[in-house]
Amino acid sequence: MFASVATGAVVDTTSSRFARLRPVAPGAVTIDDAFWAPRMRANRESTLPSQYRLLWETGRIDNLLRAAGKLDGEFQGRYFNDSDVYKWLEAASWAVAASPDAEPDLEAMIEEAISAVADAQSADGYLNSYFSRERADQRWTDFDLHEMYCAGHLFQAAVAHHRATGSTCLLNIATRFADHIDATFGPEPGKRVATDGHPEIEMALVELARETGEWRYVDLAAFLVDVRGHGVLGDAYGRFGTKYHQDHQPFRNLNEIVGHAVRAVYLNAGVADLYAETGEPALLAALHRLWHNMTLRKMYISGGIGSRYEGESFGEDYELPNALAYTETCAAIGSMMWNWRMLLIEGDARYADLLEWTLYNAMLPGVSLDGETYFYQNPLADEGSHRRQTWFGTACCPPNVARTLASLPGYLYGVSDEGIWVHLYAASSARVPLADARLVELRQETLYPWDGEINIEIGGEGEFSLMLRIPAWCEEGATLNVNGLPWPDALVPGSYVELRRDWRTGDMVDLSLPMPVRCVESHPYVVENAGRVALMRGPLLYCVEQVDNPDMVLNDIELPDQASFRADFRPDLLSGVVAVTADARVNAPSDSWATALYRATASDLRMENREGVSITAIPYHAWANREPGPMRVWLRRGW
Amino acid sequence: MFASVATGAVVDTTSSRFARLRPVAPGAVTIDDAFWAPRMRANRESTLPSQYRLLWETGRIDNLLRAAGKLDGEFQGRYFNDSDVYKWLEAASWAVAASPDAEPDLEAMIEEAISAVADAQSADGYLNSYFSRERADQRWTDFDLHEMYCAGHLFQAAVAHHRATGSTCLLNIATRFADHIDATFGPEPGKRVATDGHPEIEMALVELARETGEWRYVDLAAFLVDVRGHGVLGDAYGRFGTKYHQDHQPFRNLNEIVGHAVRAVYLNAGVADLYAETGEPALLAALHRLWHNMTLRKMYISGGIGSRYEGESFGEDYELPNALAYTETCAAIGSMMWNWRMLLIEGDARYADLLEWTLYNAMLPGVSLDGETYFYQNPLADEGSHRRQTWFGTACCPPNVARTLASLPGYLYGVSDEGIWVHLYAASSARVPLADARLVELRQETLYPWDGEINIEIGGEGEFSLMLRIPAWCEEGATLNVNGLPWPDALVPGSYVELRRDWRTGDMVDLSLPMPVRCVESHPYVVENAGRVALMRGPLLYCVEQVDNPDMVLNDIELPDQASFRADFRPDLLSGVVAVTADARVNAPSDSWATALYRATASDLRMENREGVSITAIPYHAWANREPGPMRVWLRRGW
Repeated sequence: MFASVATGAVVDTTSSRFARLRPVAPGAVTIDDAFWAPRMRANRESTLPSQYRLLWETGRIDNLLRAAGKLDGEFQGRYFNDSDVYKWLEAASWAVAASPDAEPDLEAMIEEAISAVADAQSADGYLNSYFSRERADQRWTDFDLHEMYCAGHLFQAAVAHHRATGSTCLLNIATRFADHIDATFGPEPGKRVATDGHPEIEMALVELARETGEWRYVDLAAFLVDVRGHGVLGDAYGRFGTKYHQDHQPFRNLNEIVGHAVRAVYLNAGVADLYAETGEPALLAALHRLWHNMTLRKMYISGGIGSRYEGESFGEDYELPNALAYTETCAAIGSMMWNWRMLLIEGDARYADLLEWTLYNAMLPGVSLDGETYFYQNPLADEGSHRRQTWFGTACCPPNVARTLASLPGYLYGVSDEGIWVHLYAASSARVPLADARLVELRQETLYPWDGEINIEIGGEGEFSLMLRIPAWCEEGATLNVNGLPWPDALVPGSYVELRRDWRTGDMVDLSLPMPVRCVESHPYVVENAGRVALMRGPLLYCVEQVDNPDMVLNDIELPDQASFRADFRPDLLSGVVAVTADARVNAPSDSWATALYRATASDLRMENREGVSITAIPYHAWANREPGPMRVWLRRGW
Repeated sequence: MFASVATGAVVDTTSSRFARLRPVAPGAVTIDDAFWAPRMRANRESTLPSQYRLLWETGRIDNLLRAAGKLDGEFQGRYFNDSDVYKWLEAASWAVAASPDAEPDLEAMIEEAISAVADAQSADGYLNSYFSRERADQRWTDFDLHEMYCAGHLFQAAVAHHRATGSTCLLNIATRFADHIDATFGPEPGKRVATDGHPEIEMALVELARETGEWRYVDLAAFLVDVRGHGVLGDAYGRFGTKYHQDHQPFRNLNEIVGHAVRAVYLNAGVADLYAETGEPALLAALHRLWHNMTLRKMYISGGIGSRYEGESFGEDYELPNALAYTETCAAIGSMMWNWRMLLIEGDARYADLLEWTLYNAMLPGVSLDGETYFYQNPLADEGSHRRQTWFGTACCPPNVARTLASLPGYLYGVSDEGIWVHLYAASSARVPLADARLVELRQETLYPWDGEINIEIGGEGEFSLMLRIPAWCEEGATLNVNGLPWPDALVPGSYVELRRDWRTGDMVDLSLPMPVRCVESHPYVVENAGRVALMRGPLLYCVEQVDNPDMVLNDIELPDQASFRADFRPDLLSGVVAVTADARVNAPSDSWATALYRATASDLRMENREGVSITAIPYHAWANREPGPMRVWLRRGW
């Protein structure tokens, strides 16, 4: 069985037919580092209980009780609010699996929520609290009202709950609804031809097929993809039109990633799931074209995607405004989900590189250090007004972050016929089953992402390969020893190095990934970044915040090419981060600009009033956790 | 009487107490040049008749008939659609005044429309077709539903119709509604305290007071301004909040121009009207602060304003994205209205400079050369997808353009105690009454804006001043002769030069304003324009379109500082424009960028593959009138 981490892979290890790798269950890996473990603990102990309270307080559970006839009053909130209950259930299932005895008691909450879901289901299997009672006759009339989208999240939650707990109570609800949808829509005579305005159900159906063995669900997912781009959705969805819904062309013809960013990457993830089961080359070819278009023209240096507030959408090629970046947290998570599936299909390190990049720099900024507030949008420049919120009317992002953090251990490893793949580095222990069912234990010791020294101790015997990712960001200087002896093969950035040998318990693999501070520039067509550089170190993007650089106008900072950097771990700062300091200049506009916004070109474009200063940069993911103030990722480059 | 051109000033010349200048009626000026006259003719003969047809076809007149009980069915379109009828009536009134006998017969249309308006008015004076019949009980319950806004447009139309035709039929409707509003809202006990979410009525009430002599309407306008910023509107207007409605602070405290751009400049125009009548220094001081904030930090090089799609709003300081510029045509017109009033109050050329600049480069791009299609948004860079439309669901812009063009002759001149002010240059004849009622005839001969030679022949006798604007764009070389002899005073760009003398009929004033092509840069904080220049010539902003520069990637154009320019009038091009050609370079990204969006900084930021080319630029206002393709205002600067 092939399964995404987003909906987990706790037990089964059967492989999807057209995927090179299969995942390792989140429950097989325990992260105990200083970076992720506290975040996962906060997710388990603070985020998930408080989100559950919010599900009640905002009427999301009440909506289900109302659909069950147990409560009167109006439907509360937005028509897709059921999906937040499902995403929470998915997240809570993984969290319980990882630490079943922790407080508070998530299991009781899960049971209570599932009970509400069960009661809300119609006799015919249909389940959506918005289309209950007075709106029951409007079911399946407007395909932009997220009925299939909500169904997809239900299916993902059910798969996760089943994998995490073994219980079929939510899975049975899911399959009843899936059967209802399967009986209603499809290419067969008598069935309706439609698909959802918001993709999501496609990957969920494939997962449900994997979990239940019902191939029908794969066929249904294929149908929902195949009907796109033929006017079934039409352009009746208001001002945003067909591109917004990825319905302007058949999927197999797509060359450019467009429209609503979350919809786009959710669709791509679903198509990747389809490919993993069906192996149709045209699907993979389209996925490659979309991936290249996104990564070469429509992605922020954070890995974030979706440039525009208007339509929460991808913009034109190279349209990547910083302060006005939309870069929804959910879109970053969707990109991770897509890249994860591409990685499983192909085993190409470029997907793992982007997965890691997006995890640290686009998903993680979406949640505060204390795990209690969230960003919906993630700008790369700000004047201090953009702050995380405890919740949103459209609350897709908070439970999406929660399910990502809860299933994070599942992203570390993969297994193929060759052996074990190490995708991500973090201090952790794992028990990984090889393809032949032999169990191998792996113990990673590392301070990653603050430091690139990684020591892996093997517990297991016999011949297999250990595939270690040499990140693309590690452009030079990586070294690798096995039991103290240098490994002879070249370490190529952006690839996996294969260590094939006859392993013995206690074998030590020492990988060293140097982390100098790197100055990065962007393609000349990205207009806002012309003449600017961003700072990176290891997998982390950095930014400057006013609070660390008082008495400085951040716009005036100019970083000379010959600047030298220091990177110091500061336990006192932001719960402990490596801060970067550099000798830079403050180079303010000349006084003549005080009275002009435009003027005839002067002989010297440079500003004046240069002054040497020391600047401090922090990891971008940690911004906006202290007093509000300006923030910049891109700094002017000096010579 | 003081009166804005936007609602005209055909007859009366009494001055507002706190305004230095008073306008000259549009009907006193006849423009017969090759630039504006064809546009005004198209406005009269094509635009206004076709817009009238659209008022019918889109149900806007039907809505009024329905309110009158003469038609059943649903209200059609949006709740502010009455305002389009009123703006059309205002425009048509001016057009009829200027050429009463032209075809088609606008007067009959005006009569028909006024009849529908009259019938729709309630017995108590209330008038709004959206809040008629089934919604009559919802009147004045939601102050973001534009009831006062629509009333304001009615009042402006009525004033224009009265001034243009002398008829009181629309004016009487207006005053009945104004009296209803005055009886309903105000500071007195028993009246309600509220104001409109969309400012507009403020300037209209002051105009109505001028036209009728009813000072009550000025008091009401003052009340509607004074209650802002005290929570009367609250932040109940959905996600955009109080700043969107300019309701976050009392007007007199404002330092920064924020929120919905059209609302902001309409409000400022209304406050300027108030100041002209009341002379309260705190109002003028706030207007000055807002004007400086807008012109120094929040205005495009086109004069366009309102950077953001989100909320159709001003952005942060220096937030001026080019491709994503919202820059609504109505906002440009609102800026003209505000600047016109500031000019009348202070006689400062900076307002006339900006008025001209906005007229040519921000209002005019809003309409096609044939006068039949319109832009709502006016980006400064595009890939070819942004095209003018014949109409919009929210159709504020088309009739706003129409009323601006119809009243354009009124913007050319002003009168003060000193004499006659020449604000704008265009081949035209005028009969201007001096303050002492002497009539002076003026004949301008010029090819402006294509050429800066302006010859003005005086018809009139005696001593008075002729105040000629030396535009700020004319940075050097302006010369001025009177009857062939150089005028001795310095000609200071951005000021009026005063020619005080004893004039005789046949006196000739020859002003020469050299029009070299100018390269302009923007403030270093405008990130998208860093290292870029824009081309201007005279009052016109230029741009490059793909169609004139085939086989060139516009992004790759680099304009060296030492580039030489040619400016040639091309009668065949775009109905006749001066095109600018320059020797530039095409400087494409190096091949290494084909596989990267981000990379470690290279030693040379420049691109490679330089190649000399000749580029052709056209006036920005004329873009998108041929086959679709990329367009750029800002070009990379080379050295």
